[in-house]
Amino acid sequence: MESDAVPQDLGEFELIARLTSGLGGRRDVAVGVGDDAAVLDWAPGGQLVVTCDALVEDRHFLRAHATAEQIGRRALAVNLSDIAAMGAEPLFALVSLILPQALEVPWLERLYVGLRDEARAFSVAIVGGNIASTPGPLVVDITLIGRVPAGGAVLRSGGRPGDRLWVTGTLGAAAAGLLSLTAPSMPTGVSQIALEHVRMAYVDPRPRVAAGRILASSGAVTAMLDVSDGLASDLGHLCDASRVGAIVQAAALPVDEATVEVAEALGRDPVALALHGGDDYELLFALQPDRLSSALDALRQAGVTAMPIGWLAEPETGLMLEAPDGSRRPLPAVGWDHLRPGRADDASARSTQY
Amino acid sequence: MESDAVPQDLGEFELIARLTSGLGGRRDVAVGVGDDAAVLDWAPGGQLVVTCDALVEDRHFLRAHATAEQIGRRALAVNLSDIAAMGAEPLFALVSLILPQALEVPWLERLYVGLRDEARAFSVAIVGGNIASTPGPLVVDITLIGRVPAGGAVLRSGGRPGDRLWVTGTLGAAAAGLLSLTAPSMPTGVSQIALEHVRMAYVDPRPRVAAGRILASSGAVTAMLDVSDGLASDLGHLCDASRVGAIVQAAALPVDEATVEVAEALGRDPVALALHGGDDYELLFALQPDRLSSALDALRQAGVTAMPIGWLAEPETGLMLEAPDGSRRPLPAVGWDHLRPGRADDASARSTQY
Repeated sequence: MESDAVPQDLGEFELIARLTSGLGGRRDVAVGVGDDAAVLDWAPGGQLVVTCDALVEDRHFLRAHATAEQIGRRALAVNLSDIAAMGAEPLFALVSLILPQALEVPWLERLYVGLRDEARAFSVAIVGGNIASTPGPLVVDITLIGRVPAGGAVLRSGGRPGDRLWVTGTLGAAAAGLLSLTAPSMPTGVSQIALEHVRMAYVDPRPRVAAGRILASSGAVTAMLDVSDGLASDLGHLCDASRVGAIVQAAALPVDEATVEVAEALGRDPVALALHGGDDYELLFALQPDRLSSALDALRQAGVTAMPIGWLAEPETGLMLEAPDGSRRPLPAVGWDHLRPGRADDASARSTQY
Repeated sequence: MESDAVPQDLGEFELIARLTSGLGGRRDVAVGVGDDAAVLDWAPGGQLVVTCDALVEDRHFLRAHATAEQIGRRALAVNLSDIAAMGAEPLFALVSLILPQALEVPWLERLYVGLRDEARAFSVAIVGGNIASTPGPLVVDITLIGRVPAGGAVLRSGGRPGDRLWVTGTLGAAAAGLLSLTAPSMPTGVSQIALEHVRMAYVDPRPRVAAGRILASSGAVTAMLDVSDGLASDLGHLCDASRVGAIVQAAALPVDEATVEVAEALGRDPVALALHGGDDYELLFALQPDRLSSALDALRQAGVTAMPIGWLAEPETGLMLEAPDGSRRPLPAVGWDHLRPGRADDASARSTQY
């Protein structure tokens, strides 16, 4: 019965669509619900870019597997990644803490050290926040305010058939890290250096703020978002917003050696982690084919690695994965948790910005 | 042992001070942590005013005693009140929902109806947000962005000895309402109309957005904040920020008849509710004595009631309550919960903006 539907039954994206359909109400809202961040007209020459994202203990972080400082950094990092995906400059953060009664102050102080470190690294000022207590788990909910030149934000919706799909960095490492942290036991023979690499990718992601701004100012990027739910899921969002299809080349997916090593030790397909793993916080972007070099040269000069992974196609194509032999199969636009039996449409695994 | 201190032992304001001391880092932060909202330089002619405040189920609202729509409205109202206290115009809201698994979608849709209604009533656009799930209680965490003319925000810190203290509306009704809702049984003989009045004051507060802007533009207000923790507690914040003392005249406190009726039926002192009850969401403000009329005429024309309740004094005076016979006693700058035995420095009862 729909009237008894709980959020889990409905699925997170449908829930958001239901709650927020028809929102608006001010002419100075350039982009409202539906992208990585909202874009707001403010003054001639500049627009506000605002986003919020909450980390809930045991859902988005594990206190047993990360230091307080790392959790603080990560809480800001996931928001920085949304600002990066708009091509914006992050400026101001508000930090809302929902605290379990038994949380110790020194732990909380260390969380705040992590927040401050991350803020300082990105020239962000923490300008306020809120503290409340709860009988439930710790929540770190951050709102981040950034700025773009007027009209300079890169949305999800500008992609066109023929645009080249690129992604920064590598994919799947964070998912391998999370799997290794939560596995009942780790198979022997995995190198410590590989384990540490994938775990750090999960625990302490580095948001692509500089790359986002470089790509936006290149003028060659037609659509961009950050890979937080998994490449396939987030590419699905880009294709929906741009009303296009896409073809991803499996052999082109950038997966590092440590991820392959850990994934295989755990009996997982590294490519599946890259496609559906999530928590990568890399940027997925579409480039106009005749303007590739302007964007890629700028990235290269800034020392940012990026790889081509496919291209956008006509909407009838849908979302396809191309094997090395050229054969294609439909790519389900879902994240890792959605692939697990019995957990379809699980809204609980990640928080979703809208 | 301090190293084992939990937030409750420390007290909410000391915890905030510890976590946020020395924050800053950008020259465009005009006012950071410590007021009702932060004030940020943005473009010539205007400043951003940003605040966030979270409502946690069973701490800040009771699902048994309020409709979903009312809870939605209230979640936005408490943030509107902070923007009002700066004299700012509210513009954009981000809504972060932390959802218990069993929450039903229709209930959530009604919460969102309340949010939309309140947003529409104040010309605020809901431009984004976040959804996450939790095994704990429902949290509605809202960030609100507003605007003031450059230099036009009214802070807590501008009060001077001799300034007159005024408050909008009446005090204590919300506290009486909460007490009546949570009392094991309500004494007979209380009129239904009085009960409904005080309960609505708690459940559905009306933020003083118009009054805040009128007061700010009058140029006569030296300090202002909203009364959320209770008059005495919030006056304490104003006095701390302005480095002044204050004298409050008990007989001048505006307490309406319904509040007196319900308080007395519950065996409570109505004046104590007005001083320490909290949840009033009225504006407490200090007026330059030679410019009273400009502010008060403007309020009157807008149909906003306000009452003089005392004046600011030299810092040595501290916070004093003056009885009708002219005798004075120290007024503890604490909210209702802090007066209850065994619950000193309870950080759990309300959420605190910083």
